[in-house]
Amino acid sequence: MARIVMKFGGTSVADLDRIRNVAARVKHQVDQGDQVAVVVSAMAGATNQLVAWCQALSPLHDAREYDAVVATGEQVTVGLLAIALQTLGVDARSWLGWQVPLRTDGAHGTARIQSIEGDALIASLEAGQVPVVAGFQGIGPDGRVTTLGRGGSDTSAVALAAAVHADQCDIYTDVDGVYTTDPRIVPRARKLAKISYEEMLELASVGAKVLQTRSVELAMKQRVRVAVLSSFEAPEDRSGTLLVDEEEIVEKEVVAGIAYARDEAKVTVKHVPDRPGVAAAVFGPLADAHVNVDMIVQNVSDDGTTDMTFTVTGSDLPRAIASLEQSRAAIGYARLITDTDVAKISVVGTGMRSHAGVANTMFRTLADKGINIEVISTSEIKVSVLIKQDYTELAVRALHTAYGLDAA
Amino acid sequence: MARIVMKFGGTSVADLDRIRNVAARVKHQVDQGDQVAVVVSAMAGATNQLVAWCQALSPLHDAREYDAVVATGEQVTVGLLAIALQTLGVDARSWLGWQVPLRTDGAHGTARIQSIEGDALIASLEAGQVPVVAGFQGIGPDGRVTTLGRGGSDTSAVALAAAVHADQCDIYTDVDGVYTTDPRIVPRARKLAKISYEEMLELASVGAKVLQTRSVELAMKQRVRVAVLSSFEAPEDRSGTLLVDEEEIVEKEVVAGIAYARDEAKVTVKHVPDRPGVAAAVFGPLADAHVNVDMIVQNVSDDGTTDMTFTVTGSDLPRAIASLEQSRAAIGYARLITDTDVAKISVVGTGMRSHAGVANTMFRTLADKGINIEVISTSEIKVSVLIKQDYTELAVRALHTAYGLDAA
Repeated sequence: MARIVMKFGGTSVADLDRIRNVAARVKHQVDQGDQVAVVVSAMAGATNQLVAWCQALSPLHDAREYDAVVATGEQVTVGLLAIALQTLGVDARSWLGWQVPLRTDGAHGTARIQSIEGDALIASLEAGQVPVVAGFQGIGPDGRVTTLGRGGSDTSAVALAAAVHADQCDIYTDVDGVYTTDPRIVPRARKLAKISYEEMLELASVGAKVLQTRSVELAMKQRVRVAVLSSFEAPEDRSGTLLVDEEEIVEKEVVAGIAYARDEAKVTVKHVPDRPGVAAAVFGPLADAHVNVDMIVQNVSDDGTTDMTFTVTGSDLPRAIASLEQSRAAIGYARLITDTDVAKISVVGTGMRSHAGVANTMFRTLADKGINIEVISTSEIKVSVLIKQDYTELAVRALHTAYGLDAA
Repeated sequence: MARIVMKFGGTSVADLDRIRNVAARVKHQVDQGDQVAVVVSAMAGATNQLVAWCQALSPLHDAREYDAVVATGEQVTVGLLAIALQTLGVDARSWLGWQVPLRTDGAHGTARIQSIEGDALIASLEAGQVPVVAGFQGIGPDGRVTTLGRGGSDTSAVALAAAVHADQCDIYTDVDGVYTTDPRIVPRARKLAKISYEEMLELASVGAKVLQTRSVELAMKQRVRVAVLSSFEAPEDRSGTLLVDEEEIVEKEVVAGIAYARDEAKVTVKHVPDRPGVAAAVFGPLADAHVNVDMIVQNVSDDGTTDMTFTVTGSDLPRAIASLEQSRAAIGYARLITDTDVAKISVVGTGMRSHAGVANTMFRTLADKGINIEVISTSEIKVSVLIKQDYTELAVRALHTAYGLDAA
């Protein structure tokens, strides 16, 4: 007997038939003799509708009211799924964020989980009941409903798994696992049976879109075993991808996967005075404007000024430009150049730590295909380059082959 | 300066434009210098969709889960209306049932209000804020969301008005007041400027559909002044109908209005043994099956048996039949006759108490039109008759004229 948290995303509960399917899958798990808790997202499309209403009334709406409105999406699915489970003879009940309670900080709209009181849920599990918990939502210090931001349901599930001391957290999505790269681009991409938290974190943050970054961070911190599974395969088919400690992966590949992100923008600040503190003058205001800056390169030119180049996500670009234009006098730059016709390609793998030449293989492979590298950044287990967007597929395919990732 | 609770129904908040209109109307009231709290229903159609989902998953769904699902309708509108008010510069915040808290009993789906803690709302009102409260919902003794049943938002508003010691509770609907009868049947129907709680109660319960019976009962018990107003007239137009104590109505009419209900069914239990306890044998099981029995007539025939005739609503008829068939042996009747081709016509007025001949005028008027009366029942301020449904409009018009209610 194991204690398992099962999490289902919006496409898995998009309509009543799919909710019935999810109920059958949960029952299948219960019938194995497991203790099961379920976390669900809103029906696909529901959240978008609710967000659109708030936006239409006021682009700068009160985040506390936004949360009250948007949290209803998950409230509907937990009730419906509990009913569907009961019709199959499974003892189930819904739990809203404030009922658990799942306590968050007061950052409405993008709240972070602070604590989960697991006692009531554990008692429910031990009594043989299936708690069906609303993902994405909690209760803030002000006693009002909070939401965790987009993708927060994965984070809810992992946090809940930690709070009830679950043996595993199964994340059911519309893909059947984590691949060495996007199978739509590389048909010979392989599904990874296991991946380390660190690798998944890098893959998630560069666009693999399978799991939300925050949920992987939390799983790593709390040592929660997470499985990514397809909600459209038969319940017996558990051939997804398991997130585990690096030590659990015996046969490490040098490179675990190739990721890409097209929603990138390159910003170059031209002719910045080359003096101490200028980087802070550029990036301080961007941080204040909640712009996430990714790759950063600084070139020294010979006239006592320098060019700074960095990347942001496309959706952050307008805020980045506004912030930089406001602080133009303080920084003292000549002009701004922006380019959204770029893509970021990353190779990720914990094996890099012990294998030299991984970056060099990347540069040589891209050069062989005539692809120009605009920006380079590296971390302990990742090498990323920025290239022209047109070359995205070509680059991903070439690298996938170069690192020996193609399926036989 | 007055303290006012404004309540808006589902058609008044059916889309974003109407929500903006409601916000403008609330602002108009706030600009008068009043302290204003608002109670809203779900967007028209939203509740039906949510109910349909629960029904589709299981006709016999868990009422606690149903409540969690259905209560989201009001949660969406309070958040949206608070945002709309804020964009007009009105300080507003949403309150869910469990946040107030509005405590109910544990009868999920048809819960009754037990207490409302008004302190937080009063503090909010006195600080110049507009509380926007979700109607129709509360929190039960089990800490879970409850709903008050259809039309419960009116009841929420009246209860809230009592809890915050409001001077008045304004119920905004898609009609502009209470009429002497349905204006679609009698174009010369008149709007009543004032009506007593008792009269409104009788009119509400026989089908005038302006206010839900429970809300009128509560207003009468708590002595809350209630105004019925149109949400589609200009905010300055306050020419609705005021519910007041009978003593406040100086010029009492003998008859205040004529009501009708077509959703009636007549049930006759033939040849019941005429012995003590037989009425209990018939109506006990019906009460256990939650069938509301209305008009009751018993005829004694000469063979030691009797016929019992009574009415129920059309929606209760299947349950009534099932209940009677189950207890056939215990009652010992010969057969059941049911008839849904009937309508109940009622004349209502507190003036009846002091005026003889009101019932006789009714019988004579209907006889003059050749309308046969099948069942008669009377109360202190009401006379009701059951007739063939085809004659509904003819009867209502003739009675409206006979009691001198036609507009000049």
